[in-house]
Amino acid sequence: MHNKRASKLSVIPLGGTGEIGKNLLVFEYEDSIVVIDGGVKFPEDELLGIDLVIPDITYLEKNRERIKGLFITHGHEDHIGGLPFILPKLNIPIYGTRLTLGLVQAKLQEKNPYPESLVHVIEPGEPIRAGVFEVEAFRVTHSIPDAVGYSLLTPVGRVIYTGDFKVDYTPIDGYNMDLGKLAAWGQEGVLALLCDSTNSERPGVTISEKIVGKVLREWFERAQGKIIMASFASNVHRIQQAINAASDIGRKICVVGRSMENVVNTSIELGYLKLPQENILIPSSEVGSMQPEKLLVLTTGSQGEPLAALTRMATRSHRQINVMPGDMVVMAATPIPGNEKLVGKTINHLYQIGAEVVTKEMGQVHVSGHANQEEIKLVIRLTQPRFLIPHHGEIRHQAGFRKIGQSLGYVDEDIAITQLGSRVELSPDRMEFGERVEAGSVYIDGLGVGDVGYIVLKDRQQLAQDGVVVVVAALSKSKPYKILSGPDIISRGFTFMKEADALIDGAKKDVIGSIERQFEKDQIEWGALKSNIRDSLSKYLWEKTRRRPMILPVLLHY
Amino acid sequence: MHNKRASKLSVIPLGGTGEIGKNLLVFEYEDSIVVIDGGVKFPEDELLGIDLVIPDITYLEKNRERIKGLFITHGHEDHIGGLPFILPKLNIPIYGTRLTLGLVQAKLQEKNPYPESLVHVIEPGEPIRAGVFEVEAFRVTHSIPDAVGYSLLTPVGRVIYTGDFKVDYTPIDGYNMDLGKLAAWGQEGVLALLCDSTNSERPGVTISEKIVGKVLREWFERAQGKIIMASFASNVHRIQQAINAASDIGRKICVVGRSMENVVNTSIELGYLKLPQENILIPSSEVGSMQPEKLLVLTTGSQGEPLAALTRMATRSHRQINVMPGDMVVMAATPIPGNEKLVGKTINHLYQIGAEVVTKEMGQVHVSGHANQEEIKLVIRLTQPRFLIPHHGEIRHQAGFRKIGQSLGYVDEDIAITQLGSRVELSPDRMEFGERVEAGSVYIDGLGVGDVGYIVLKDRQQLAQDGVVVVVAALSKSKPYKILSGPDIISRGFTFMKEADALIDGAKKDVIGSIERQFEKDQIEWGALKSNIRDSLSKYLWEKTRRRPMILPVLLHY
Repeated sequence: MHNKRASKLSVIPLGGTGEIGKNLLVFEYEDSIVVIDGGVKFPEDELLGIDLVIPDITYLEKNRERIKGLFITHGHEDHIGGLPFILPKLNIPIYGTRLTLGLVQAKLQEKNPYPESLVHVIEPGEPIRAGVFEVEAFRVTHSIPDAVGYSLLTPVGRVIYTGDFKVDYTPIDGYNMDLGKLAAWGQEGVLALLCDSTNSERPGVTISEKIVGKVLREWFERAQGKIIMASFASNVHRIQQAINAASDIGRKICVVGRSMENVVNTSIELGYLKLPQENILIPSSEVGSMQPEKLLVLTTGSQGEPLAALTRMATRSHRQINVMPGDMVVMAATPIPGNEKLVGKTINHLYQIGAEVVTKEMGQVHVSGHANQEEIKLVIRLTQPRFLIPHHGEIRHQAGFRKIGQSLGYVDEDIAITQLGSRVELSPDRMEFGERVEAGSVYIDGLGVGDVGYIVLKDRQQLAQDGVVVVVAALSKSKPYKILSGPDIISRGFTFMKEADALIDGAKKDVIGSIERQFEKDQIEWGALKSNIRDSLSKYLWEKTRRRPMILPVLLHY
Repeated sequence: MHNKRASKLSVIPLGGTGEIGKNLLVFEYEDSIVVIDGGVKFPEDELLGIDLVIPDITYLEKNRERIKGLFITHGHEDHIGGLPFILPKLNIPIYGTRLTLGLVQAKLQEKNPYPESLVHVIEPGEPIRAGVFEVEAFRVTHSIPDAVGYSLLTPVGRVIYTGDFKVDYTPIDGYNMDLGKLAAWGQEGVLALLCDSTNSERPGVTISEKIVGKVLREWFERAQGKIIMASFASNVHRIQQAINAASDIGRKICVVGRSMENVVNTSIELGYLKLPQENILIPSSEVGSMQPEKLLVLTTGSQGEPLAALTRMATRSHRQINVMPGDMVVMAATPIPGNEKLVGKTINHLYQIGAEVVTKEMGQVHVSGHANQEEIKLVIRLTQPRFLIPHHGEIRHQAGFRKIGQSLGYVDEDIAITQLGSRVELSPDRMEFGERVEAGSVYIDGLGVGDVGYIVLKDRQQLAQDGVVVVVAALSKSKPYKILSGPDIISRGFTFMKEADALIDGAKKDVIGSIERQFEKDQIEWGALKSNIRDSLSKYLWEKTRRRPMILPVLLHY
């Protein structure tokens, strides 16, 4: 390896480590920076009102002129969803396979179209020069077509990032994972492997997507009424299999839900989704007039999302499609952790209507897109890396990956457990942590990017728990001090006030007490008076109700 | 059967149907009412700020003088947790087995002690007269000792309610489920079976609790440092097995977490938990000075509850017990749907510290306490009821139970799928739905029981999403109209205001516009002015931010 000036390669995860979501990896060597992916993450429950979370890219903005390109592994939201916010700030070339870029461009065009000159379609196996790096994509199998991992040939050695993958020996589109290439690189020598660790806690191997096709077919054949299948919009393989099965048994297909329509249209346009007959797709406006036993509806809503099409059908609030008794609803996805209750609600609504509901528990209508333990071992054995860096996982998954590494003879020092902003420094024979870079989360709420932070969220949490109480009073500005009007008490989200007359009277008395104690002073300290009102009333309401609403004193003076 | 005046037996679920939680069943025949259980339910996510949910017992309050008694199946929160709120309103005799009543009394004494004269310990197999009913408890196996189901011999026939059960042929305490009694009643003739349907979607049979003991023992033997085991406090069998295993390998035991301490103390006191050696329990104050390899900590927090002991240990905020690298944490429970993310967080914190975490995925450290499909079939076959009523389940579980019934030859008309407040009327040869009774949920928030309803919750949801904006202005009361002070804008939970000067200026202008349009009228309509300010400002803020904070106009006039 060219070891000029003993420079080191830095690997910096700005997203996707210690968490599932918002993947963004940075590779840096002297004047060259290469970025992989730019995803979103869906907000945790306590991030009230937040729509999306993207990585903090301050470090990239500061080093923009050194960035040679952004390479994308595949078209899932947690890998491309942040790009509409990230790319306009960086204005850098982007690289990806055809379907991936098709999905990215559909997404960018909704917000700001990105200059065509910066968008580069790549083919796996064709190396691309990006500063000092030679970047080469290799095919992986995953729950979306055209997914790749990347090899970066760097001055200190080759580094491989798998991207999201499973080892599916019978992929729906016939494109196998390029295990041969991984083995060849392994023979040449690989410095470090960054590997998908999502399923590192799961023993054995994942099941091929092909099995889902067989199972769907069996269920479809049994269906009496309409079939409605909910899945992730991006699972083009599964959608292809559902379309094939429906076509075979003489059903037409209606695609509903915005993201499902987007992905299906893009995939058909680019040739990744093949329709077995012409005119097999029908618009949702025609569903009402079709015989139910001649119909398959492909829909979003597999996660019970309140506004998704299936959820609206289940609650009878979809404009065009009704679920009827005897319809079969196939939930061809598992709930992402945190969504179990929402999904359960949808299922209950469907049973209430009298539909038959098919879930993963009743047969393999969903399989994971991520590698289990034995697949991870395979990739490690093929690439024979000197060092291991688990990526795409929470701490538990990183720890699970470390155990796998240990079982293959790696010692703790050879495995880097990173956090957001960690800088892993690699030289041909050493891996160590360097100085951390700025990293974290940026919250998106409505049109606001980053204007909702810790304090605003804390306030929302308090408001969510116990509501707000506004205290209004007008006081004379100068002596003799007196209360000119009020105090009045307005509350929202606190208690059903009509039943709380005594509580309000007590609250008013408490406020008057705080005001009169200030009147005794030579000069009214308005700031102190407000905080006295707040403290005293808060204590009073806690004693009476065991609740702590937010108290906002509004004082006017004349 | 005595069919005088052709009266019917009514079965009315006031809780526990169409939902998991707050079980409460009512049996009514002419002047006799018998109630079974009075549980709580933990609030859904959208019930912001709500602590607990209990059944609406308006119907029982209105018919109080006809209630002959309340019978309790077992000591789980979803069967007894509502009693501190329900019993003071009814003042009726209660019946239950010894441990169950011990747990109920511990709970009642925290709030209001219940008159001893109304509390009756019963033995399975001893019939109790309650109005026209002859009530007899029979042993079931479940994840807490001393659990029973009830048979009610009524003028129209025998009705059996299983309570929560599984068929465990090797129960830890040696008390088998009384299948013989069920068979005998089946021979005599059973009118209806109300059956636990929680696991009706799961094929096969549940695994015996005994297996958990074996698996725990294996893990415990492997542990190098402290062992910390988190489980439901009420799972006395599992706690017994953990204590036995710890004792065998020479570890002392520390019990932490309020509910765990309560249950363990009550169980030891009443003889349901047996300590294999004296002085095997140590107080948490001594944990710090013990060798970690000589210690087992039994703790609450298996659901990731933010304030539970394990959660505090994992975030290093427990006063006396620290998790150290090399400690083993056994999660001897599965997350209740909805708690997956919280549990995942705790697990990640534990890995971060460097602890080994053992979950159900790595070995049978948890088994369900509810009957799977084959066990449900067994109970139906033994009791041979004329009619089936699934209880203790959401709609999906009731539908699953119906499928089981169908597989045994029951037709839809023989299976009643109830909702809260349904009245199922039974005569010796007929089951039909009668007039519904008042039923639903009562929310408990702090000291308030029922004062937080739909409007308050809607307000909390809006506040949680986008915060609150208070608009304050003082106007002259009469002509010439002018703005004496303001408008001022105060917001909380909306946006980080320091960066929003332009937004605030725009908002003020918008409010001034609304006010001045009112000034043009002959007389200011204060109500209309407030709603104009609200509508116009809401529109303005939506356009600028895509958020809808709650807007509270406060207008003073002089």
